[in-house]
Amino acid sequence: MTLAILFGGSSFEHEISIVSAITLKKKLVRNELLFIFMDKDREFYLIDAEKMKSTTFSSGEYKKARKLSLGAGGFAVGGLLGSKPLSFDVLLNLIHGRDGEDGKVAALMTFFGIPFIGPRLEGSVLSYNKLHTKLLARELGIDTLKYRVLSKDGERRNELGYPVIVKPVHLGSSIGVSVVRSESELDYALDVAFELDDQVLLEPFVEGIVEYNLAGCKTSLWELSLIEEPQKEEFLDFDKKYMDFSRENRVCEAVIDAELREELEAAFKRIYDPLFRGSLIRCDFFVVEGRVHLNEINPIPGSMAHYLFGDFEEVLERLAAHLPREKEIDVDYRYIHSIQSAKGKA
Amino acid sequence: MTLAILFGGSSFEHEISIVSAITLKKKLVRNELLFIFMDKDREFYLIDAEKMKSTTFSSGEYKKARKLSLGAGGFAVGGLLGSKPLSFDVLLNLIHGRDGEDGKVAALMTFFGIPFIGPRLEGSVLSYNKLHTKLLARELGIDTLKYRVLSKDGERRNELGYPVIVKPVHLGSSIGVSVVRSESELDYALDVAFELDDQVLLEPFVEGIVEYNLAGCKTSLWELSLIEEPQKEEFLDFDKKYMDFSRENRVCEAVIDAELREELEAAFKRIYDPLFRGSLIRCDFFVVEGRVHLNEINPIPGSMAHYLFGDFEEVLERLAAHLPREKEIDVDYRYIHSIQSAKGKA
Repeated sequence: MTLAILFGGSSFEHEISIVSAITLKKKLVRNELLFIFMDKDREFYLIDAEKMKSTTFSSGEYKKARKLSLGAGGFAVGGLLGSKPLSFDVLLNLIHGRDGEDGKVAALMTFFGIPFIGPRLEGSVLSYNKLHTKLLARELGIDTLKYRVLSKDGERRNELGYPVIVKPVHLGSSIGVSVVRSESELDYALDVAFELDDQVLLEPFVEGIVEYNLAGCKTSLWELSLIEEPQKEEFLDFDKKYMDFSRENRVCEAVIDAELREELEAAFKRIYDPLFRGSLIRCDFFVVEGRVHLNEINPIPGSMAHYLFGDFEEVLERLAAHLPREKEIDVDYRYIHSIQSAKGKA
Repeated sequence: MTLAILFGGSSFEHEISIVSAITLKKKLVRNELLFIFMDKDREFYLIDAEKMKSTTFSSGEYKKARKLSLGAGGFAVGGLLGSKPLSFDVLLNLIHGRDGEDGKVAALMTFFGIPFIGPRLEGSVLSYNKLHTKLLARELGIDTLKYRVLSKDGERRNELGYPVIVKPVHLGSSIGVSVVRSESELDYALDVAFELDDQVLLEPFVEGIVEYNLAGCKTSLWELSLIEEPQKEEFLDFDKKYMDFSRENRVCEAVIDAELREELEAAFKRIYDPLFRGSLIRCDFFVVEGRVHLNEINPIPGSMAHYLFGDFEEVLERLAAHLPREKEIDVDYRYIHSIQSAKGKA
């Protein structure tokens, strides 16, 4: 198939997305790839495969590439003699953060009828908002860490004790996140987070918490990755996460018993289906006092978490063949017709 | 100002939206209006004001109107000599149901930089999903009726007793909703609802429940409507609701004491701010055993619930002047630059 990889975006994670796309290029060897770059101004460019290196973007050289328009009928390549549709089978949404993960790309692709791999509108909005991710998990019977939400113009109070972790409710990739060890540090951490978001989530920071990452999707069957226990420093900051997104190697599987594996997989499935059909997501879990807790849902994980799968390209191919379809809605004007005929009789 | 009214849509409520737009045309007399019709195939047309009657759409005559394209820079009018931008100050999203209320229009307008009155992406998704509306209300400390969610491929069981109300989790305007009075009727009601949605919500049906509707928005201050106690039959079905959307007259205010009014208004404000900034919404509340319960949030009420306001056009003008702005995100390529310079040193 021809797979169009959409990356970049008007997002704090613009650069991470570029790194993700460059990494995936190396991993997808059997399919034809097109690279659609969205710059910070939301202009689209068709990037030649051999130009897929970070300097193309950081130098602004990408502006010499062919510009694309997005509208009814999908993407089109402009030209002096009118534009012509850009043809591909499926688009892979690889824009991390705003636009990609908040639901805008999902809305655009759905609206313009472009088949795509990635979270749909509703799954995007619910996973992009850390509060609503918690409400969703609770509804599904999956534990999360306790929390409080503070508003920009509300009271600045921490009832959870210290250390506490401060996170903007939206955004991803640890942006604006701090660990606060005492009350004297709270104000500064909140200032940083409120620069980025109007709502901030507080959670207890648990030393030495064990984390497990599990990625997957549903095609004709469940396609679940191995479970990784990420080896991390106390706290993965943006710089480290950035490097992490360019990972090319397969990781070591977590050594866990069958019962915990089953519990993690069951939680993943409850979260995924039906909300995330059409996407390949990664769920990050904690185990606290023997209980599985959902930490976060990455609906577009860095470099698609390819390193967690045996044959990642095959999984992606099967996923491309199992995308959800929008329901068809027929408009027959029966109400207007019935009113018109009622008026005619009056 | 010039206000562009976007209506129609690929939605079960396509016809309701046409009725809403025709009704608003009569109510907005001080501002210049443009009418942008989205047909069921998501094609856009610029409809002349004098053509704003239901037959224009039911007869297909609208196809003779000027076609619009939507893309970077907003809407444009096509022509033999290239297209030219359609100029207006603010767009009013009046597409009920899918596309309009599910977040797609919000995403498109935000992405393409078109200032608009209407729910933003997140508020759209949360109010379009009746389950997540409940989770949101609970998080805000507002009661809702108890419920169960059934999935299309799951068990068909009602633990709530009878009568029970069956609703598709998505959609609006009573589509696919039934009151079920005994177990023998349950299967049929579920068949109807599952035709439309993969998830269905069950709620106890409370005879003679008192409903209060309150609409409003936040500009430089709170602009709350009068509170209506809708006079309804046992259950407002789609046909009746359809007629309801064309209401032109002001309604009678509910006779309630100051305490209840304050409680309803406080609940409205908690729901509205900050999630629904930029929109004029209507919240429908129940009072059960003396406690205010949220029934549903209408982020684009029929004909904008103009009939609940003293001077509706003034409210809309102030709202147009107080629309939220997207945060600016600067992409400076500092991570890519720092990696490049690190490589240079190696």
